[in-house]
Amino acid sequence: MNLEQEKEKRVQEIERVIAGYMPECTGYQKTLIDAMQYSIQAGGKRLRPMLMQEAFRIFGGSGQAVEPFMAALEMIHTYSLVHDDLPAMDNDEYRRGRLTTHMVYGEAMAVLAGDGLLTYAFETAVKAYQYASSDRFARALSILAEKAGIFGMAGGQGLDVEAEKKSIPLTEEQLLFIHEKKTAALIQAALMIGAVLAGASDEDVSRMERIGYYTGVAFQIQDDILDVTGTSEELGKPVGSDEKNHKETYVTLHGLEESIRDVEAMSMEAVGILNGICGDTEFLRACIMQMISRRK
Amino acid sequence: MNLEQEKEKRVQEIERVIAGYMPECTGYQKTLIDAMQYSIQAGGKRLRPMLMQEAFRIFGGSGQAVEPFMAALEMIHTYSLVHDDLPAMDNDEYRRGRLTTHMVYGEAMAVLAGDGLLTYAFETAVKAYQYASSDRFARALSILAEKAGIFGMAGGQGLDVEAEKKSIPLTEEQLLFIHEKKTAALIQAALMIGAVLAGASDEDVSRMERIGYYTGVAFQIQDDILDVTGTSEELGKPVGSDEKNHKETYVTLHGLEESIRDVEAMSMEAVGILNGICGDTEFLRACIMQMISRRK
Repeated sequence: MNLEQEKEKRVQEIERVIAGYMPECTGYQKTLIDAMQYSIQAGGKRLRPMLMQEAFRIFGGSGQAVEPFMAALEMIHTYSLVHDDLPAMDNDEYRRGRLTTHMVYGEAMAVLAGDGLLTYAFETAVKAYQYASSDRFARALSILAEKAGIFGMAGGQGLDVEAEKKSIPLTEEQLLFIHEKKTAALIQAALMIGAVLAGASDEDVSRMERIGYYTGVAFQIQDDILDVTGTSEELGKPVGSDEKNHKETYVTLHGLEESIRDVEAMSMEAVGILNGICGDTEFLRACIMQMISRRK
Repeated sequence: MNLEQEKEKRVQEIERVIAGYMPECTGYQKTLIDAMQYSIQAGGKRLRPMLMQEAFRIFGGSGQAVEPFMAALEMIHTYSLVHDDLPAMDNDEYRRGRLTTHMVYGEAMAVLAGDGLLTYAFETAVKAYQYASSDRFARALSILAEKAGIFGMAGGQGLDVEAEKKSIPLTEEQLLFIHEKKTAALIQAALMIGAVLAGASDEDVSRMERIGYYTGVAFQIQDDILDVTGTSEELGKPVGSDEKNHKETYVTLHGLEESIRDVEAMSMEAVGILNGICGDTEFLRACIMQMISRRK
């Protein structure tokens, strides 16, 4: 398998799914929907829907049940970036080389575009009801909401914002909490929802949750490592921003060498759990390894 | 029936339901959940859950299926107020005599508290799955998301914000669109979801949608009327703010006299449709009349 070719093929398919579930830019809410479209078209790597689709496939899922959830998860990921970039939050003017949503549409419209994407994510996920058994549908929805919400991503954001605004130094436990919730939660959602919709056993769903944890936390630590070791050209964003912002990261707490070792250990954990799953897990393994060892 | 006594009794019950579904303020996300609690405890009239519960009762609903949705709708209503009050939006420092969420918790935490409430609304609504038939559950969820989202409340907000930021004069059609979406949509959601969960016919659900439309739009026009005719003491907020902000309202477009007549006509429409529904609609009729003819 050529990983890059395979990923490119899948990204094209995922783009089609997402575009198919996005609302049309018409009517009196045209500008708002434009802002939502602009945000979701920022050209991310579509990692979360890709992981979800693959988990669905691994456990023998077929049919369209996973598609509304793939689009929904990407909408949720996108809303979180739009709100994160707001002047009141990280105050970022660029993301992946493009102006952020509030720079183009204004701050008020960016707040609403985020709200619109978050709500439309659930409106979209509900469309899976016609394709899935009702038990799987309800469980998938519940995971989506929990992992996006205050016991998931938003909860991690909450502590992150609080620590930053009050300049409270984070403990190791708090830092891991933020990484788990802010980054790993949506990766867990991707893997778990794919598995649930395909009818995986509770044990396998729980395995996917643990794989998502190690992958997500390692992915985030790798991000912190790249902020120290990477170049702006590779990353397409300024490096050294954590140090400049006096931001505590796993790297500032543990040093570069130990951080690199820990990322390695976590990726081994993730792959070890994956090895316990019956099915063709080759592509998922390759994706996880690439996410963790990426240079950009 | 003494309407005030009956409402007071029901509000107590509704407060218990909402409190029961709100998350506990513990853990690393404590401040975020505190901010959500502060926001929802602002002491609103709990009109939307009250209408939902009553619609459920009218169509013979029993059991707990409606309760998660009652709490969810109030969370959505609350999130919309928190985001509305933000400096980038209406920049309001007080709501109902209390400091707004961002004045107490800061702007970033208020953005997150709104996001947290919106996501937790869906996390809460999903809990109704155990109490309702899956068809009714999925339909109720779909209505909740649609009426809250870009084809509902958020869509109305979008045009309102756009017109205000760009100082574009609104046409009558646009103004009615904003009132329908921004105000009536959640009232429609309340009435429709209550009916759906109780197993009402499609025809009756559509009646509830139309009742919600007339009630919501009349309620909003009455708000605009009170901004001209009311006193600060009655309303607990400054009056004349629309004129001060050069805000176009139904009253500035049609004049006070015609607006009062139109509110009356819309309330008659709503009650006329309600009269076509079999069942004990006395309390709902009284609520609607009071919402529309309120002095505060």
